[in-house]
Amino acid sequence: MFEKYYSRRIQKTPSSFIREILKVIQNPEIISFAGGLPNPISFPQEELKISLERITSVYQDKIYQYSTTQGLDSLREYIVQRYKKIWNMDITIDNVIITTGSQQALDLLGKVFINENDSIMVEKPSYLGLLQAFCSYEASFVQTKLDDEGLDIDDLKRTLKEHKPKLAYLIPNFQNPTGITYSYQNRKDIFEAIKDEDMLLIQDDPYGELRFSEDERIPYIGLNQTDKNIYLGSFSKIVTPGMRLGYIIAHKEIIRMVETAKQAADLHSNIFGQYLISDYLWNNDLDKHIEKIKKLYKEQSGAMVEAMKEYFPNSVKFTIPKGGMFTWATLEEGKSSLELFDKAIKRNVAFVPGDPFYVNEHNVNTLRLNYTNATREKIQEGIKRLSEAMKEE
Amino acid sequence: MFEKYYSRRIQKTPSSFIREILKVIQNPEIISFAGGLPNPISFPQEELKISLERITSVYQDKIYQYSTTQGLDSLREYIVQRYKKIWNMDITIDNVIITTGSQQALDLLGKVFINENDSIMVEKPSYLGLLQAFCSYEASFVQTKLDDEGLDIDDLKRTLKEHKPKLAYLIPNFQNPTGITYSYQNRKDIFEAIKDEDMLLIQDDPYGELRFSEDERIPYIGLNQTDKNIYLGSFSKIVTPGMRLGYIIAHKEIIRMVETAKQAADLHSNIFGQYLISDYLWNNDLDKHIEKIKKLYKEQSGAMVEAMKEYFPNSVKFTIPKGGMFTWATLEEGKSSLELFDKAIKRNVAFVPGDPFYVNEHNVNTLRLNYTNATREKIQEGIKRLSEAMKEE
Repeated sequence: MFEKYYSRRIQKTPSSFIREILKVIQNPEIISFAGGLPNPISFPQEELKISLERITSVYQDKIYQYSTTQGLDSLREYIVQRYKKIWNMDITIDNVIITTGSQQALDLLGKVFINENDSIMVEKPSYLGLLQAFCSYEASFVQTKLDDEGLDIDDLKRTLKEHKPKLAYLIPNFQNPTGITYSYQNRKDIFEAIKDEDMLLIQDDPYGELRFSEDERIPYIGLNQTDKNIYLGSFSKIVTPGMRLGYIIAHKEIIRMVETAKQAADLHSNIFGQYLISDYLWNNDLDKHIEKIKKLYKEQSGAMVEAMKEYFPNSVKFTIPKGGMFTWATLEEGKSSLELFDKAIKRNVAFVPGDPFYVNEHNVNTLRLNYTNATREKIQEGIKRLSEAMKEE
Repeated sequence: MFEKYYSRRIQKTPSSFIREILKVIQNPEIISFAGGLPNPISFPQEELKISLERITSVYQDKIYQYSTTQGLDSLREYIVQRYKKIWNMDITIDNVIITTGSQQALDLLGKVFINENDSIMVEKPSYLGLLQAFCSYEASFVQTKLDDEGLDIDDLKRTLKEHKPKLAYLIPNFQNPTGITYSYQNRKDIFEAIKDEDMLLIQDDPYGELRFSEDERIPYIGLNQTDKNIYLGSFSKIVTPGMRLGYIIAHKEIIRMVETAKQAADLHSNIFGQYLISDYLWNNDLDKHIEKIKKLYKEQSGAMVEAMKEYFPNSVKFTIPKGGMFTWATLEEGKSSLELFDKAIKRNVAFVPGDPFYVNEHNVNTLRLNYTNATREKIQEGIKRLSEAMKEE
């Protein structure tokens, strides 16, 4: 009844498909691989309790008062130190702004950079929260194909030439939804292809810390070689998502512009949560905590890969994740994962059909599977049921 | 160096004048009436500590996990009960969405309703956070004059006729920046004038609970008489602003649309804070707590009014606040409050010049004074210094 009042942009913005699915699968009989929730093991509850006691007694009313838009200095300083140590980045706290989760980082970057019909390059498939956020700024998306190594370089070059995107958004590590990790060579090839373009590059990295192997980390695309890189990070997958704390690292001129956008968006992020997480980070060994999460996810991922190898029809391909929370299956050409979804639900197993991760394609043959919230037994049983649904004609 | 990448909207959005001022007045010698911070007395720290202990032991990992976009049911239910009790509103939790502070409510409503150049009616002067938020959606503002009774009804009628605004934004109780409260008659006259218009009305009410007199509350404009009303509320001035928790009450169709916008903006507001505030509200007497805040603010407001009466030149007019956190002074015609600001700073007293609260006017003769963070002595001394600056030629 209020149609005539709504803005163009909101009428174009899809409501989250995944959240709709989550409503369908309330039935506790269902084994769900549909969600994207971190395992509660990733919340250091005992240590956070100690930090809670400390911040209430040390900072008193400061933890309850209004605060600055850029975020708590000590939290930004922790981020600076960590990125200096790991990546040798030459940054100060002026290159960092705290956001209300990484989702807000996407919203603010959309607000700062996107005019209607601006050409924005994303992966194919891409993170659906990004599609939602940028859709609400009426972006014109172009999707560049992913393969096992990362971006398809030919497709990338064609995209750059034909569409001259203003902005690109990539998740190089353990991508959501595909679980793919860009190889070192692929990252170098991408940087070669884009370095002379008039394009900013956003690299979102919520899962980067959740690397299963002991190999070295693979550097970001164009790391320390350009001012046009924007890095996103988050505490959601390694400490807690409930506090809604993420961050942007970028040239300080960009950070200042994002700060103006953030003033208008929510003044500042929850300062209580910032004190809490900052206190936790400075007083605990984060890497030791991350080891615990990785150990569990690696086991769960292994169990899922094992079960997929055992049960899936040979025609179905899937990612073997090197980290993160997801794998991605591709059915035979012409099959529909939406149809599979209905059959799977009848067998009490759920996943996310690939459709919402694409801009212009429907009835795709791909699907996302999350493994971080099920036991080995549930994973095995769920994949078995899903395989039966796949084999049903 | 990134100019060519920025969006039109962000280039038009002013960064907060007040936050700039706050940087200027770090000097501890300065008596500042420039801020808008609630007094720490308004944070029920002891009770929140008890709630902290309770929620960590009762809800455990739930307080750290992802949650729903609309917000915690128990918190929304508390809001429903309170508005039913006070205003006899016929609402359920489907009429309520939790936002990351009231500022996010403004941003989301802008996102849901405003196309570029849409005509939006605001008070003259208006809340600058609203101007920032809606500016970022390229709104075309029309300002309707305020007088001591509320909106100037003739100016309102002319505005409606000439501009056909799609949306109006008003703060009927203890307005920011003027401290003005709309009279009962004024509210009835406004509703008569707008009820047949194609216009949604946002009534923002962050200060409504901070009423100094024992008189009855004055109802909202068109309360319970239309589906086109949108009410905003906040816990920032009565419990804590640090948690960034506000809310929107509206027709459930509008709430659903706001929910889509919020998914794209930050997924959900800090759930830890929602558990905390909900637990506090259900286990304590909020009205008793509010009494304490009101008693202090009434004393401070009284001290400021007394000092203004004693020291200000006769040519200077000011609001006698009936509640809230601000008063508003009007210098002689032709004087500039920006010029006064420089003279005042030399005398170590600060305020907010009126300029940022207007859309098209500059070098205005008005200024905002906050009284919630100074003692009676500081208030007296500060107003005395300010008066001297006023008298200086």
